[in-house]
Amino acid sequence: MFELHPTLANDTVEITRLSLCRVLLIRDKTYPWIVLVPQQDGLRDLDDLNETDRIQVMSEIDHVSKTLKSLFKPYKINVAALGNVVEQLHIHVIARFQDDAAWPAPIWGVGPLEDYADTDRDLLVVKLQEKLNKIAVL
Amino acid sequence: MFELHPTLANDTVEITRLSLCRVLLIRDKTYPWIVLVPQQDGLRDLDDLNETDRIQVMSEIDHVSKTLKSLFKPYKINVAALGNVVEQLHIHVIARFQDDAAWPAPIWGVGPLEDYADTDRDLLVVKLQEKLNKIAVL
Repeated sequence: MFELHPTLANDTVEITRLSLCRVLLIRDKTYPWIVLVPQQDGLRDLDDLNETDRIQVMSEIDHVSKTLKSLFKPYKINVAALGNVVEQLHIHVIARFQDDAAWPAPIWGVGPLEDYADTDRDLLVVKLQEKLNKIAVL
Repeated sequence: MFELHPTLANDTVEITRLSLCRVLLIRDKTYPWIVLVPQQDGLRDLDDLNETDRIQVMSEIDHVSKTLKSLFKPYKINVAALGNVVEQLHIHVIARFQDDAAWPAPIWGVGPLEDYADTDRDLLVVKLQEKLNKIAVL
């Protein structure tokens, strides 16, 4: 039975579930920052996924990246599977801007998470749901 | 015509070329650190790849990750496509250890690159070539 790591559960709100991954918004208004978590137990690294699921996770990363691009028009998308602290496999997809708080450095460790106001977060989640659920992911 | 970004050319030595990516060793003995560069012009983000190439890049990331695991027995593999400084699409695959210089933080920005001694680097490149070229990548 898949269970989301408590740190991920605490730091995120769920946007939607795609066929492999749970799609979570990080509670940090500093960056549009999504995390994909394949809903399987015992995964730590990307290469722990079998071939079918590796293709699927790539397709879902692509779908989330294009959604962030379409909504936020970022300068760059950062994609990363690190997991040195929270070992459950999770893939960050982050919209980056040349005037964001960490630019051009990676975002991890730059500052504490700064949560959205509840209404802002709810609105963003709805917007993301609309975009992510509009197109079927292959 | 594909041309490697001068910063990547300067900071790496070539290990091999897979069907999509050039596989480069970063000149930094601090971590076993490989970079994959899809040999196509004008790519910035992972989602700039077409569907076939996304599947291929994932397969090559997997192949490099498993090679690093087999040679170094790391605690974790970190995979990341950032590119905020060097915009040419490149994917980092890094073997991480709980006693490495940056653990558990990401490695970027922790210290300057510390090159290998020439003979050590040559030996490592040969070892990586043997492993990477042994198995055909789907």
